[in-house]
Amino acid sequence: MSTRTLFLLPGDGIGPEAMAEVVKIIDHMNTDAAAGFVTDTGLVGGSAYDAHGAAISDADMAKAMAADAVLFGAVGGPKWDDVPYEARPEAGLLRLRKDMQLFANLRPAICYPALSAASSLKPELVEGLDILIVRELTGGVYFGEPKEIIDLGNGQKRGIDTQVYDTYEIERIAGVAFELARTRSNRVCSMEKRNVMKSGVLWNQVVTATHKDKYSDVQLDHMLADAGGMQLVRQPKQFDVIVTDNLFGDMLSDVASMLTGSLGMLPSASLGAPDATTGKRKAMYEPVHGSAPDIAGRGIANPIAMIASFAMCLRYSFNMIAEANRLEKAIANVLDQGIRTGDIMAPGARQVGTTEMGDAILAEF
Amino acid sequence: MSTRTLFLLPGDGIGPEAMAEVVKIIDHMNTDAAAGFVTDTGLVGGSAYDAHGAAISDADMAKAMAADAVLFGAVGGPKWDDVPYEARPEAGLLRLRKDMQLFANLRPAICYPALSAASSLKPELVEGLDILIVRELTGGVYFGEPKEIIDLGNGQKRGIDTQVYDTYEIERIAGVAFELARTRSNRVCSMEKRNVMKSGVLWNQVVTATHKDKYSDVQLDHMLADAGGMQLVRQPKQFDVIVTDNLFGDMLSDVASMLTGSLGMLPSASLGAPDATTGKRKAMYEPVHGSAPDIAGRGIANPIAMIASFAMCLRYSFNMIAEANRLEKAIANVLDQGIRTGDIMAPGARQVGTTEMGDAILAEF
Ligand SMILES: CC(C)[C@H](C(=O)O)[C@@H](O)C(=O)O
Ligand SMILES: CC(C)[C@H](C(=O)O)[C@@H](O)C(=O)O
Repeated sequence: MSTRTLFLLPGDGIGPEAMAEVVKIIDHMNTDAAAGFVTDTGLVGGSAYDAHGAAISDADMAKAMAADAVLFGAVGGPKWDDVPYEARPEAGLLRLRKDMQLFANLRPAICYPALSAASSLKPELVEGLDILIVRELTGGVYFGEPKEIIDLGNGQKRGIDTQVYDTYEIERIAGVAFELARTRSNRVCSMEKRNVMKSGVLWNQVVTATHKDKYSDVQLDHMLADAGGMQLVRQPKQFDVIVTDNLFGDMLSDVASMLTGSLGMLPSASLGAPDATTGKRKAMYEPVHGSAPDIAGRGIANPIAMIASFAMCLRYSFNMIAEANRLEKAIANVLDQGIRTGDIMAPGARQVGTTEMGDAILAEF
Repeated sequence: MSTRTLFLLPGDGIGPEAMAEVVKIIDHMNTDAAAGFVTDTGLVGGSAYDAHGAAISDADMAKAMAADAVLFGAVGGPKWDDVPYEARPEAGLLRLRKDMQLFANLRPAICYPALSAASSLKPELVEGLDILIVRELTGGVYFGEPKEIIDLGNGQKRGIDTQVYDTYEIERIAGVAFELARTRSNRVCSMEKRNVMKSGVLWNQVVTATHKDKYSDVQLDHMLADAGGMQLVRQPKQFDVIVTDNLFGDMLSDVASMLTGSLGMLPSASLGAPDATTGKRKAMYEPVHGSAPDIAGRGIANPIAMIASFAMCLRYSFNMIAEANRLEKAIANVLDQGIRTGDIMAPGARQVGTTEMGDAILAEF
């Protein structure tokens, strides 16, 4: 049995509580199926700042780079609202994405049948919803330079951020979206603001050319990102795979996640390019939700997004497809049984805490 | 009776049809109440390109600058998909905003009671919804330089856009939001991505300082723009006034408009600063919807957003508050009577075309 190395970065707030439930599943897979997972744990976000004065230490960064996969919890909280910009909790997350070159962020927005009534949308609009947002994660306005605040004198300052996209960056994320579409309903919708942004014009051209060159079997549509936000709310089931840039992906995936009624339950995968010789890709898996400082430490957080992120890890980093499917099925079963954490509590359901939810899923797994 | 000059830019697609219904109301006000409106009409968008090779001519631009208010229909359509970037239909709209310095874009998202069932959200979440999005309109990534596509050689290009905000730009839009909040529920929520963008850091600081200096009687909250998009879908009624930058405002107002079930019915006002001597502000009024080329010329477009934009014009440019209220009431009454254009048709209602809808509103006015 080969060794599979996992680097755990539980982070702040509810991150550690959610991660503990994944650790139970990992231990179980090692004991029960000799899965050979070897884990190490580091610090990220506010907890790293408290320990090292940085949102992630170089030593932990090196471990993340070396691991087969990183599991990431959540970062941030009011305690660190006033730390210097360069050391703010999010800087740890952004450094991981950038240094590991995790350019492809996969954010499924699925509606668990047991939760369709929890959506703020009418149930018929979201029942069976299964969208995959493919967000570019290492470019755009997140990382472009100049990015600064200049003092202009006279009490005036100037804040500057730069959106930059090169052809190859657009090509490779489009490729990921088209490949994934082929495993699903074979449709990609690309979103940008080409009517206002030059990077949007280039985005549109490169996606179109990539499609023509290599993926003309996939159906491709283009939509302006603002119209896309609208359409996500109007008729979300029209979409299969959505491919978009870093900032639009941030906005659109948050809107999409809210449609599902499963906010706090959605996982994500951030993937690098396959290594030219080994074929391995660097990868990090994290819940879409944040650190929820208001409920941290009380044992009531919903661990499902973190567990579902581990299912994505099984699928994308270790090609353990059967196990990934089984874990996702276990989550759906537990929801069908009416077992709920407080955030997704419904009349007639049984309310449990973080640990019981983890145990229930493990029992079904 | 003073003269009130209006410059009409009907534009493309359904723009002219919708504008014709406003002209009826203007004529009625002139005849019936000696309102003294003097109108002139110009070309913008694709129709201006066809006539002049530019999305707005300098002559029409000069008329827009000189008028008391501009009424704008809509621009764009597949016919002009391949015109050069600088002459694309949207360029006319962007030049109007920029040259007239219309920095404050007011986008109300209200849910007409008669239409609450038409929202994709559950009715109880949107009934009585009344949000005002105050979007900065002359700065940010829409206009910052550099904005270009560079050829890097080797088949690689680089698309660049620049997000720029100066202190004074943030101060003045925040001022507009706080002033308007005082006439409503006295709450402002400011949205940016300060965790990723330096312009967001400055935005947050300046809004906070403006609040402390001059508007501490107004309740101020801050929200990250992605979380804001989520919350708009989750619980829209938590918001009163939202203030945000040009690009986030574009995205968030489209999401918000969709919540109301009244898409195609929402107006907007774009205002400049009051003139130091006359106190007058340049202004343009336009529907939030687009040019809908698919239904153009068939007499079925919904003119309500255009008419409601004229109501905003009466209110903000001419201080004709009673008339504005009466016109808005007329729209609501017609909806209550079950009169509908095709886009908002509902079981049991009576379907009418553009002209009949305009006539029905005029009859109630
Ligand atoms: C925490 C923050 C930096 C991050 C982002 O903006 O990418 C988050 O919103 C996300 O979507 O993963
Ligand atoms: C047509 C387009 C340039 C415009 C914008 O992006 O501002 C539109 O979407 C809007 O919101 O008014």
